Amino acid sequence: MGVMGVIKERRSVRAFKTDKVPDDILLELVEAGTWAPSASNIQAWYFIVVNDQHVLEQTAAFSPGLLGNPPALIVACSDKQLAFENGGEIGERELCLMDLCMASQNIMLLATEKGLGTCPIKSFNGPALSKILRLPDHISPELVISIGYPKNNPPTPLRKPVNKVSYFNKWGDGIEA
Amino acid sequence: MGVMGVIKERRSVRAFKTDKVPDDILLELVEAGTWAPSASNIQAWYFIVVNDQHVLEQTAAFSPGLLGNPPALIVACSDKQLAFENGGEIGERELCLMDLCMASQNIMLLATEKGLGTCPIKSFNGPALSKILRLPDHISPELVISIGYPKNNPPTPLRKPVNKVSYFNKWGDGIEA
Repeated sequence: MGVMGVIKERRSVRAFKTDKVPDDILLELVEAGTWAPSASNIQAWYFIVVNDQHVLEQTAAFSPGLLGNPPALIVACSDKQLAFENGGEIGERELCLMDLCMASQNIMLLATEKGLGTCPIKSFNGPALSKILRLPDHISPELVISIGYPKNNPPTPLRKPVNKVSYFNKWGDGIEA
Repeated sequence: MGVMGVIKERRSVRAFKTDKVPDDILLELVEAGTWAPSASNIQAWYFIVVNDQHVLEQTAAFSPGLLGNPPALIVACSDKQLAFENGGEIGERELCLMDLCMASQNIMLLATEKGLGTCPIKSFNGPALSKILRLPDHISPELVISIGYPKNNPPTPLRKPVNKVSYFNKWGDGIEA
């Protein structure tokens, strides 16, 4: 259906079937993430695949935004130490997060094409999640992506039309300097 | 070629042909951006399309990371006021930036499918760019995406392999709690 079709087909899914997602598909999604752009090619990212029932339940208990019992998660994490050592303060504060979000969009788009539903979740208890996943201190969980086969196709959320969120050349449109 | 094909085909392009990118294609790229996930569906984003030669030159003068004379840019901006009013401090500090990066990846992937080259650029003088584009105070330019027909196909940058950046269930791999 082409990239635009997949982009428009993606929904934030919050109700999943119990069917497991095969490991090789989960790793293919991670691979899609690793092909995102990365500032100075630092790639200060890690992707923790969660599909053990006990770890899923522990994670859900500390993630109010995680809904619908997904059978898998990819927890997108930044390596703050690597980001700082190679990219300085802006690397640690912003660039590694930006890279990770582009990686996450790759993951969600490829999942959509494969008939999987996803939801990007920021509402979780970071320190608790770090403990559950046994993350070292310099690894920061930034985004939890739930993954599974959707129970239903959520309605399209209202999108602002292009002409309400874009201008040519100058705010307010194209007046020459 | 499928989503994974497009994901792997995308390169950060830093040498462009002089051919213009038609306005309707640039607006289609913006539309792709508007279909990204958005925390609480706030959509605190704006996309300034730059394709006027004078504005391009002004922008390039304050953007050391902008290379190869692209005939167009999309400057991805966040609406910090809207993000704060609807999402509080975390909305203003992180969520709107995260949404915008996912939107930017949509833009770059669709561009790749259309045979366009892109490069996400963070190395620019924000206050200068705001002045050039006449952005209101609450609108923050977060990422400059250069867009144009690539002069050549850059080599694939080294990617860390999946097994170096992922674990199952726990850091260090799958040991039960």
